[in-house]
Amino acid sequence: MIKLDLTNILKEEIGQSGLDFDEIKMRAENAVSILKERKNEDLDFLNLPYQDLKKIKEIGQKARDYEYFILLGIGGSALGPKVILESLSPFHNFQKKPKVFIFDNVDPYTLRNLIELIDLKKTLINVISKSGSTSETLASFLIFWRMIRDKKMEVREHFVFTTDPEKGNLRIISDEYDIPTLEIPKKVGGRYSVLSPVGLFLAEAIGINSGDLLEGAREITEKATANNLDENPMAYLASSLYLMDVSKDKKIIVFLPYSDRLRSLSEWFCQLWAESLGKEGKGTTPYPSLGTTDQHSQLQLWMEGPEDKVILFVSIESHNVQEEIPEEFYHIEGLRFLGGHTLEGLMHTEQIATEMALSLNKKANLKIVMPKIDAYTLGQIFQFLQVTTAMAGFLYSINPFNQPGVELGKRLTYGALGKRGFESEGEEVKNYLKKKRIII
Amino acid sequence: MIKLDLTNILKEEIGQSGLDFDEIKMRAENAVSILKERKNEDLDFLNLPYQDLKKIKEIGQKARDYEYFILLGIGGSALGPKVILESLSPFHNFQKKPKVFIFDNVDPYTLRNLIELIDLKKTLINVISKSGSTSETLASFLIFWRMIRDKKMEVREHFVFTTDPEKGNLRIISDEYDIPTLEIPKKVGGRYSVLSPVGLFLAEAIGINSGDLLEGAREITEKATANNLDENPMAYLASSLYLMDVSKDKKIIVFLPYSDRLRSLSEWFCQLWAESLGKEGKGTTPYPSLGTTDQHSQLQLWMEGPEDKVILFVSIESHNVQEEIPEEFYHIEGLRFLGGHTLEGLMHTEQIATEMALSLNKKANLKIVMPKIDAYTLGQIFQFLQVTTAMAGFLYSINPFNQPGVELGKRLTYGALGKRGFESEGEEVKNYLKKKRIII
Repeated sequence: MIKLDLTNILKEEIGQSGLDFDEIKMRAENAVSILKERKNEDLDFLNLPYQDLKKIKEIGQKARDYEYFILLGIGGSALGPKVILESLSPFHNFQKKPKVFIFDNVDPYTLRNLIELIDLKKTLINVISKSGSTSETLASFLIFWRMIRDKKMEVREHFVFTTDPEKGNLRIISDEYDIPTLEIPKKVGGRYSVLSPVGLFLAEAIGINSGDLLEGAREITEKATANNLDENPMAYLASSLYLMDVSKDKKIIVFLPYSDRLRSLSEWFCQLWAESLGKEGKGTTPYPSLGTTDQHSQLQLWMEGPEDKVILFVSIESHNVQEEIPEEFYHIEGLRFLGGHTLEGLMHTEQIATEMALSLNKKANLKIVMPKIDAYTLGQIFQFLQVTTAMAGFLYSINPFNQPGVELGKRLTYGALGKRGFESEGEEVKNYLKKKRIII
Repeated sequence: MIKLDLTNILKEEIGQSGLDFDEIKMRAENAVSILKERKNEDLDFLNLPYQDLKKIKEIGQKARDYEYFILLGIGGSALGPKVILESLSPFHNFQKKPKVFIFDNVDPYTLRNLIELIDLKKTLINVISKSGSTSETLASFLIFWRMIRDKKMEVREHFVFTTDPEKGNLRIISDEYDIPTLEIPKKVGGRYSVLSPVGLFLAEAIGINSGDLLEGAREITEKATANNLDENPMAYLASSLYLMDVSKDKKIIVFLPYSDRLRSLSEWFCQLWAESLGKEGKGTTPYPSLGTTDQHSQLQLWMEGPEDKVILFVSIESHNVQEEIPEEFYHIEGLRFLGGHTLEGLMHTEQIATEMALSLNKKANLKIVMPKIDAYTLGQIFQFLQVTTAMAGFLYSINPFNQPGVELGKRLTYGALGKRGFESEGEEVKNYLKKKRIII
């Protein structure tokens, strides 16, 4: 089970920069009670661990016969699958098939190179969009669709859609061309969708048992609503981060896992937290980081820059690999002392030294401890962070499941591209482009 | 030449959240005059564009004969080379040789997989550490050194060191074993070293003319100290970001390039800015981002979260690739409007729509415009951002070339690992580990 170490966020450890334990506990209780009240409303991601996997496994097994697997999606439709790939099969494209490419942008240079790299006849393309109207995803979809049709290949052998069960453009095309299609439950938004077919289909396609991910997530889901607060680190984490913002003005949360395999988990968490909580002038900025690497990049700023951060370590108890540092150059002290330790030991030591250094400087820090990295614990940490984020939203009294702030940019894009119904936005963009600019 | 669009940071555009142009100009003048005064002191990175490339090119040419190229380095010794690789040869390992792996951590799982992937006999290992005493880099160096010796291979055929011209552990070993070694000039620190052999050797190893990088950097270097402020966007950028912090309390700078190829430039810039300016309680937090992707991840927070950010766009005028979106599904409006546009057009439109949406919401934003991405313009943007960062340091009246805040963590690590001379730190760590923890 994943644990949370609160010590270095408490007054006892870091003085007036810290919080009282009782204060954290009170808000944690509050968060759990709101979660329980709202369980049947908007919180469909809590039901994902109990879903039926039959269809995902069936189509997933077929996907393993292809040489290339391309995922078209952006935001929540790409970040979750990316974590599954990079955490559970980090050297995948060097070692295994199908080779996986996640195209989560509209960069023409990337797409052109990708097309030259693959053999379309041996390629399966998973198009992911809950709404079916994500411009970026649809643009690249159209390019692949045309190529496949031009080559007289069967579209239903080269596409799998992951979308809304009833509505949207992809659903229309799916019905028209009989494309294999997986369903994202109606009330599950993009950033809470990794444990839906969005992430699970990729898992199966690369040979990971999606059931293991769900098993881990189930354990967390049960603890999330349990009466025993001692088994609910999510509530304590939500409460701590909320209080650090509203009572200590810490507006940045650095998410700092000590494992290369969790680099993309940082990005995924940052989307989850930012889009869920950044509204009504509230929320904090989640910062994607990586240990030990960023000790040589960001640590200076954390130690001596503005007092606006909480550092959230994610420590891995076992990396499952022993790699000993040999004893060489006994005459050079700068090398001698490293010999006989392991890389895992060095990584742990640096993590501890960094949290100590921060604490000695009275900088608030917390630590999530994961026993190891596998499908089961990854399923846990996904649900752990989703529950934490939703609870933080309740404490802020905002809706953690919408994203009204992105609409304006989308409407202006539609207008500029000439979509029907967005003529006035099109005019706005035209006028904007005519304005005099101050350029140096 | 790279340009800076200041329009959306001015009062005329975003009202009271904005700055006066004259105020920006005054500080810009100030920044240039300090740069000129201090030109011969600590600012050796300004001399890098004029260095002799003969040795780098010689060893670089030999490197091209290997199948695998491993770079061992962390922080500035890894981030710069990573940008060169990922910006100028983004699908490198699928298309070209030597295959390049940058190992910038001590994760045993990564290292084990990497070792299994390569053929050591056909591998060149570039060990980069200015001081020669970076524990993370030396740990993995020791592991590779032992393997190569165990296999009775010649160390000088498998290692190239990049380090201080005179001092440090790598220099001692280089002398003892006659290892080919490239020099990082004495006064050039890690985060300002990309245009030294740190980055240039990798460039040559993957077939990029390091002279092109320097040519671009030379152009910027000359403009940086020129009398004509109209040709000095760096000074305006330093001034704008400084003023946005001290007079508008914007503590976060989102670095947002619109090109997959510049994803790692974001990370590189974030190290440069954070470590240079985050000291004495001053500085701002640079945030690594990517367009269009992060419109589906962070934009909600930028639009409606706390008022603490400046968004710094990096727009690319030409991606050098045309990729047309075909006209298909004429009966589905959500797809019809995309047909006939190009991906490049879509990317530009989304960038414009996003800056417009931010401006309409009175959110400060700036835009760097790069004509295209190649070795010449990459050399420009490196020097552009380095000059900007140094100038910002002068405006803050801090030293942008040191990093005192990372010492404590290093000392504690040394102590815990038993390095001589750090016995009291070792005791401190022991006591810390004995303390009672509050764990949920």
